[in-house]
Amino acid sequence: MNRFASLTLAAAGAVLCVPALAQFAKTEDAIEYRQSAMFIQNYHMSRLGAMASGRAPYDAASATANAEVVAEISKLPWIGFGPGTEGGKAKPEIWKEQAKFKELNEKLVGETGKLLVASKAGNLDALKAAVSAVGETCKSCHDTFRSK
Amino acid sequence: MNRFASLTLAAAGAVLCVPALAQFAKTEDAIEYRQSAMFIQNYHMSRLGAMASGRAPYDAASATANAEVVAEISKLPWIGFGPGTEGGKAKPEIWKEQAKFKELNEKLVGETGKLLVASKAGNLDALKAAVSAVGETCKSCHDTFRSK
Repeated sequence: MNRFASLTLAAAGAVLCVPALAQFAKTEDAIEYRQSAMFIQNYHMSRLGAMASGRAPYDAASATANAEVVAEISKLPWIGFGPGTEGGKAKPEIWKEQAKFKELNEKLVGETGKLLVASKAGNLDALKAAVSAVGETCKSCHDTFRSK
Repeated sequence: MNRFASLTLAAAGAVLCVPALAQFAKTEDAIEYRQSAMFIQNYHMSRLGAMASGRAPYDAASATANAEVVAEISKLPWIGFGPGTEGGKAKPEIWKEQAKFKELNEKLVGETGKLLVASKAGNLDALKAAVSAVGETCKSCHDTFRSK
């Protein structure tokens, strides 16, 4: 992808463009950035998971509010995995298997977009299915690319 | 504001509703949440600040990509300042002066919305003015409510 195409994509908000956004002064900042984004993701997913599993009452407006954050934040962690930012719990495989990592990045952005749509259906079954699909996408990336 | 009104606001995405989203198991989680959101805010504001001050070349698409994140993330830190979550660098005044704190919260959401609009004007002077207004809003809250 050339620079113009990547900036156009970023401007369109489809998938945030890593080169347009990533420019960390120190590796520790990149690590803190990605960990911060995933902490926020995980918090809002846990709220949705509680509704999906019946541990919290289903509330359509709250589901949408949480899904909106998940869909937006899921575009961000990738910014913190630029070249030379190895460290934290990230396995070195991330930088060796960039195509696979990018595929999982795009899958998460896609599934969280579907989660947002499902949250607006006002229907618990739709929410459950979408929460489960996002959770599986998180897990497949963590299983492959995150140290225990 | 009653519960119905607050949920309607959250659903409209105007200002994310704290009661609809905030439910942390531990105070440390609320602190980590708000610090994570502000770390991400600060990173993207620093990219915009570099363009506004001439330390980085002006790039309209990159400005918009960063401003989009700032505008979205600026709705979040407040979720982590619920009742009983005193700690970190947050001064106890936050919980004693809720009206003032909320006013600054709303001011930031407003100014970052204007920043996003300004970033789309494709004009460095408009960007500079909006970055400065957001920076002053951050500072006024930090001066009052953040420990040194």
